[in-house]
Amino acid sequence: MRQRNKPWADDFLKENSHFVIPNPKTYKNRWNELFGNSNPIHLEIGTGKGQFLAGMAEKHPDVNFIGIELSKSVIVTAAQKLMDTGHENILMINENAENLMDIFAENEVSTIYLNFSDPWPKNRHAKRRLTYHTFLERYKNVLDPKGELIFKTDNRGLFEYSLVSFSEFGLKLVEVNLDLHQLNDPENVMTEYEEKFSAKGQVIYRCRAQFE
Amino acid sequence: MRQRNKPWADDFLKENSHFVIPNPKTYKNRWNELFGNSNPIHLEIGTGKGQFLAGMAEKHPDVNFIGIELSKSVIVTAAQKLMDTGHENILMINENAENLMDIFAENEVSTIYLNFSDPWPKNRHAKRRLTYHTFLERYKNVLDPKGELIFKTDNRGLFEYSLVSFSEFGLKLVEVNLDLHQLNDPENVMTEYEEKFSAKGQVIYRCRAQFE
Repeated sequence: MRQRNKPWADDFLKENSHFVIPNPKTYKNRWNELFGNSNPIHLEIGTGKGQFLAGMAEKHPDVNFIGIELSKSVIVTAAQKLMDTGHENILMINENAENLMDIFAENEVSTIYLNFSDPWPKNRHAKRRLTYHTFLERYKNVLDPKGELIFKTDNRGLFEYSLVSFSEFGLKLVEVNLDLHQLNDPENVMTEYEEKFSAKGQVIYRCRAQFE
Repeated sequence: MRQRNKPWADDFLKENSHFVIPNPKTYKNRWNELFGNSNPIHLEIGTGKGQFLAGMAEKHPDVNFIGIELSKSVIVTAAQKLMDTGHENILMINENAENLMDIFAENEVSTIYLNFSDPWPKNRHAKRRLTYHTFLERYKNVLDPKGELIFKTDNRGLFEYSLVSFSEFGLKLVEVNLDLHQLNDPENVMTEYEEKFSAKGQVIYRCRAQFE
């Protein structure tokens, strides 16, 4: 996503530290204290503008959603929108997903969503893809063994790469869908990007995978 | 493929027993005696009209190709065409792939091709799909551990199902391609069906997988 410099972002984050949690590492193994309940935690890595989290939080009030977003300029936009929804089952973290294991304890997360992650199409950038084996290692660590990694993309190259990467890592594919929107599944919550590109006729791929 | 009744098929098979091998179980573990060399054996399961085998045999003279086809009416057409090519690295078997382990010894086969197999779209027919786990068990048995199962189809449902089936069985995906013809790969030999349907704009899927 295009990132504008937002000089007010630091102030915004300071004022909204109840929603975009500063020092998230201090909450390792006790995120549910912040939510005030023991509901399962679902994590979206790369929240973008937040539409997916908003839709999911509304559909699933018994799930605690956490969005991680690296870009400060992006997370403030999402945070503003998500706070406006009034849903109390959403929190955000302005962090790099590389640090996932410092932020969450083993098995603390029930589901991880990767939505339209940056494809990093050049081979020499493969290690930056969120489905590269170093990331899978982190997901495996924080994810409940019965939990799922759910991955959507419209990028054919990234999807092809990721299926092979999952397989090499020993992940089990639970579902592969090569044209998600043909299902017209009312349970599918679209991201802003997904809405825009599927309207143009772009095929959306999805897979669900487990680490055990 | 539509099957016409061909009353001359039995006579044809009798006359061409050097090419469509009768009693193939008697050649278990000694197929290379029939080829008169020790080249690797590649197997196509469901040869249809034979265009794939013809093209592959021409491109790869150092490989022995065997085509298995269940339908007598179909195999005679393919056999006629393939004998006409004059390639000496092709043989055929008129058998059910269920009997694979009676026909080939462990590790006797280097590569297995599944091309545009019948999708059997109804769930209750899943066990007839050539990527159902009972078939995978047979492939694993006869295939060299470093050998590959190479699967092409234009059927989205069958491809989605098969990726999950492979994963459940513990196969490792070596390659997934969700639009094979975008590659314009001169090494890709097309079946009759593939030529016809890709000309109509149908996407062709391919994956390569290994059992170890």
